Amino acid sequence: MGIDPAGAASAAEAERLATELVERTIASACAFKPNVAFFERFGSDGWAVLERLRKRVPEDRLYVVDAKRGDIGSTAEAYADALFDTLGADAATVNPLFGADGVVPFARRPGRGIFLIARSSNPGAADLLDLELAAGVPLHHRIVELGLRWDPGGAVGFVAGATSPEAVAAVRRLAPAAPLLLPGVGAQGGDLEATVRAAAAGGSRRFLVAISRGVAAAAEGPAAAAAAMRRRIAEALGQTAPA
Amino acid sequence: MGIDPAGAASAAEAERLATELVERTIASACAFKPNVAFFERFGSDGWAVLERLRKRVPEDRLYVVDAKRGDIGSTAEAYADALFDTLGADAATVNPLFGADGVVPFARRPGRGIFLIARSSNPGAADLLDLELAAGVPLHHRIVELGLRWDPGGAVGFVAGATSPEAVAAVRRLAPAAPLLLPGVGAQGGDLEATVRAAAAGGSRRFLVAISRGVAAAAEGPAAAAAAMRRRIAEALGQTAPA
Repeated sequence: MGIDPAGAASAAEAERLATELVERTIASACAFKPNVAFFERFGSDGWAVLERLRKRVPEDRLYVVDAKRGDIGSTAEAYADALFDTLGADAATVNPLFGADGVVPFARRPGRGIFLIARSSNPGAADLLDLELAAGVPLHHRIVELGLRWDPGGAVGFVAGATSPEAVAAVRRLAPAAPLLLPGVGAQGGDLEATVRAAAAGGSRRFLVAISRGVAAAAEGPAAAAAAMRRRIAEALGQTAPA
Repeated sequence: MGIDPAGAASAAEAERLATELVERTIASACAFKPNVAFFERFGSDGWAVLERLRKRVPEDRLYVVDAKRGDIGSTAEAYADALFDTLGADAATVNPLFGADGVVPFARRPGRGIFLIARSSNPGAADLLDLELAAGVPLHHRIVELGLRWDPGGAVGFVAGATSPEAVAAVRRLAPAAPLLLPGVGAQGGDLEATVRAAAAGGSRRFLVAISRGVAAAAEGPAAAAAAMRRRIAEALGQTAPA
């Protein structure tokens, strides 16, 4: 469950919306993923909301902090402190643009994990992430290959947008055992069933379908919408090879 | 002047170090550039320091917030709010990985500017940013070409690390009029004189040499170190064609 209180006019409203969303979808969601941007808009007040939000998510749910940080090595270390120590993330999204020394400080935290951006869900993914390399593959393939090489052991997963089930399939083929984070279903128009089938290819069950607006703003309310999404994921999985 | 209080053990200490550095280098620095990571480590307390830091930098100095944010369009809009409205940045560093819709929300703010990461100063820059594309150029060249295309008019500059004066020269050749932000001098070992000559090629004076540890931790103290760097930049400029 993505927690993106984009419509909030204040940190207090963002906190109310985020808290309500957790309470209403807890029965159906295996993980919660706040996007830092929608809290950071409100500066230190928004960050204080994020610090409190961790405590509202039960320990038996995965807590993914969607921050997409990336910088050179010494700075990446400070961002890892912020995401894992200060905000209590089990896992965080990381931008791979700075290469090995920008990624490893996030990946080597014991008991935590990262999702590297491989192929984002937005139209602009075509601008850089789909670029064809001289080696004959698109940039997002190379990100997956490098991410696996940088992985100290089971800590590195990838973001692959549901708006391109072909890219999800390619990422899964290159990284059969990696956890995948799959945004883009719902408001962004991604195909849930095709994405689940692509991510589950080879029998893998290691993926999270991240839905934000498609549940939070659903006409039937978030609780019913989250339950419906959970059913659709299970049904799509039923059409794939068993784990 | 880069403001990176990496050694601070608390938000209060980060604030003290940052404030002292501004006071001691104000006579020599044309711009101040806090890196958000070294404040964000301390969560909401660190963000409160950043909110206060803006007021300590005089209005006649450029205030560059080094945050390297990047996300899909709707989220990039929220990050732009955070950097320009909440933190009061004149300019911000932006990660181009998400493409046009991830960059334009930052670039279209009236009276503000961005520096897109073209070629970072760290060893990991070789992993993605130097990759050869099928089109026959490295990825950082394409980032510059796209950044200029996305520019609504004079708002887009580029980051090019002083650790590769060749990359600085290439970025300047592709973007003769763009502002450049040049990190990597000092602790990272970049060549100040070669970098200044590359950035000033064609008579341009639109660049900032960003130095952090090389001034803040200098044996002679930050005031003397900043003055010495300013002299070295002026001398290197004296060896180039006039503006």
